[in-house]
Amino acid sequence: MEVSLKKISIIGSTGSIGTQTLQIVDENDDLSVVAISCRSSLELFEKQIRKYRPSLVSVGSEADAKKLGQMISDIEGVEISFGMEGLTRVATHPEAQIVVTAVVGMIGIRPTIAAIEAGKDIALANKETMVCAGHIIIPLAKEKGVKILPVDSEHSAIFQSLQGNEGNKIAKIILTCSGGPFRGKSYDELSDVTVEDALKHPNWAMGKKITIDSATMINKGLEVMEARWLFGVPASRIQVTVHPQSVLHSAVEYEDGAIIGQMGTPDMRLPILYALYYPRRMPLSGERLDLFSIGHMDFEAPDMETFFGLQLAFDALDAGGNVPTIYNAANEKAVAMFLDKKIPFLRIPEIISECMAGIDYIKDPSLDDVLETERETYEFIERFL
Amino acid sequence: MEVSLKKISIIGSTGSIGTQTLQIVDENDDLSVVAISCRSSLELFEKQIRKYRPSLVSVGSEADAKKLGQMISDIEGVEISFGMEGLTRVATHPEAQIVVTAVVGMIGIRPTIAAIEAGKDIALANKETMVCAGHIIIPLAKEKGVKILPVDSEHSAIFQSLQGNEGNKIAKIILTCSGGPFRGKSYDELSDVTVEDALKHPNWAMGKKITIDSATMINKGLEVMEARWLFGVPASRIQVTVHPQSVLHSAVEYEDGAIIGQMGTPDMRLPILYALYYPRRMPLSGERLDLFSIGHMDFEAPDMETFFGLQLAFDALDAGGNVPTIYNAANEKAVAMFLDKKIPFLRIPEIISECMAGIDYIKDPSLDDVLETERETYEFIERFL
Repeated sequence: MEVSLKKISIIGSTGSIGTQTLQIVDENDDLSVVAISCRSSLELFEKQIRKYRPSLVSVGSEADAKKLGQMISDIEGVEISFGMEGLTRVATHPEAQIVVTAVVGMIGIRPTIAAIEAGKDIALANKETMVCAGHIIIPLAKEKGVKILPVDSEHSAIFQSLQGNEGNKIAKIILTCSGGPFRGKSYDELSDVTVEDALKHPNWAMGKKITIDSATMINKGLEVMEARWLFGVPASRIQVTVHPQSVLHSAVEYEDGAIIGQMGTPDMRLPILYALYYPRRMPLSGERLDLFSIGHMDFEAPDMETFFGLQLAFDALDAGGNVPTIYNAANEKAVAMFLDKKIPFLRIPEIISECMAGIDYIKDPSLDDVLETERETYEFIERFL
Repeated sequence: MEVSLKKISIIGSTGSIGTQTLQIVDENDDLSVVAISCRSSLELFEKQIRKYRPSLVSVGSEADAKKLGQMISDIEGVEISFGMEGLTRVATHPEAQIVVTAVVGMIGIRPTIAAIEAGKDIALANKETMVCAGHIIIPLAKEKGVKILPVDSEHSAIFQSLQGNEGNKIAKIILTCSGGPFRGKSYDELSDVTVEDALKHPNWAMGKKITIDSATMINKGLEVMEARWLFGVPASRIQVTVHPQSVLHSAVEYEDGAIIGQMGTPDMRLPILYALYYPRRMPLSGERLDLFSIGHMDFEAPDMETFFGLQLAFDALDAGGNVPTIYNAANEKAVAMFLDKKIPFLRIPEIISECMAGIDYIKDPSLDDVLETERETYEFIERFL
């Protein structure tokens, strides 16, 4: 099988997914990078520019754009852009065939929509796109005939488990999670959790925000929302399954009772690689899952009372409209407050719940409504909580 | 999706797979049975004929054909045949689109080849076809453009795990097994195993022969051979994995390290249903796998020294030619001798090993060679062992 050169854009190239995407590029001669963006990690960004020679790059601010211009003044043929316009230009670079959306936060939504409108396939690592704007993105992608290829271990596992099953009804999605560092703890035991405690994740090395989300299980709540849109399955048919070993990355149950699942080591490069080459699987360096040394896998139901942030995600999906956006924005803010040691751990889901109850409901929010809801949620927290 | 009426033939309709296939027919209006065969269970066979009204039926002997003629003398339009000719006619019935090969033993090989030559898809439950004649069957099926759809839980699981991965290289097949009733026992502990002990299988209710094969793990050896032909993977890339809960029915590891596997309850109707409707999945009644109540899955390497019958299967595959046939035939005979209490349990693999060493090697055996090897193996055992 012959593969032609594949050109990719990455929004968020200096983050965890961005850098791992570039590792994949390193190992595959037929991938090239035409455009990248970062917010403010200029030093790493400069190295990436020198190595991959994209024709367009973008940073967060005009000041950083100027600074970067000086840093790479010896390089020709690299256009520097910034802000939302820059992000959107990276996402819609004329040569890009696939855009890796590796930015964190709702800032990823507009450029993702722009990329879809420009007919680019999306390797989606930006959760917020689906959580807040799935109802806009999915129909748009269908209309434009572009693929949305999930880049996180759970949704990629589900996506992989759906292959060869076109037209077969999904009975249930089994969305696995490690349970985080506080699995098995009672609600009361979590009252004095420190930031340091919460940052210890058992299986995955990740950023701070997502590690806290894993400790609250709100990360899994966001993933339930993502799955709802990516796979068109109602929340009632998404079963969160605690699986401490993180070997089964997720699975799909069909109408005949067969459960197809994907297992592997906790290596984010696999879903990235699969998204970039889909439906081809390419060789990947690194350790293999060894069932003999793993020995066993455990499964249990999540404790929705202790981790009621997860329950809130199901509630938010049931409510629909802009409520998932409220959930996401409130969590973002609350996690920042927890990391700043301004609120205790258990206050995170409480803040989400209070925001969900306190902010005006919009049934079928436009993109502007979604972004306005985010702003309103932040304001609500600052003013009242 | 509209499904047209599907007409099936079943060779071996009164056995475990045959009767479960008919249960599937009961639940699906678009399936009809045009021809069935059995060896000698005339009473059940009569009931099946009255219920499904096939136009052609076949039994083992001329005497039984006569007896059956009297039993169903009140029914019109049912032709009765017998012996190998009858079996072959059932397998090649002009109206049949798919043939379920549910007979046990090498008797299934000729009719299966005839069915493939007649352009029928095969729902393959007859292990011996692949074990002894895989090198003939697989190229023939390719030439005739017919599908070989595996009907047992492991190979169906592998087949399901391969869907959507056309062109992707298989790194490893993970062939799971419960480990049988003697898992964890040492070689010495198996010296005084009784027939009754060996007939207690932890997870599956099956026939006597296959239950003993499970206790010796020779069943898994035969499945390794089957997998080698069905999926075109050398024995070195087939990893037998002991998994006492029999939840993961088997899996495939790809070049990128992803392992796709199929899980479910131990229900043979699922692989039958999947084979009959492939690639569609139909609703299936019955219990669903509940990971929460399962709680955990264990995995361990097989003990190839205690269960050296399994090791012999790998040796037989390495040797190739007619050696897998010797393995299979010697085992058949040895199990019958064990069930008759003529030999101890541990003598079973010894007899296989002695036959593998003692019978002439044929490099690329024709179908006649294969059948001759079976006869020779029986004779060898009777004469020398």
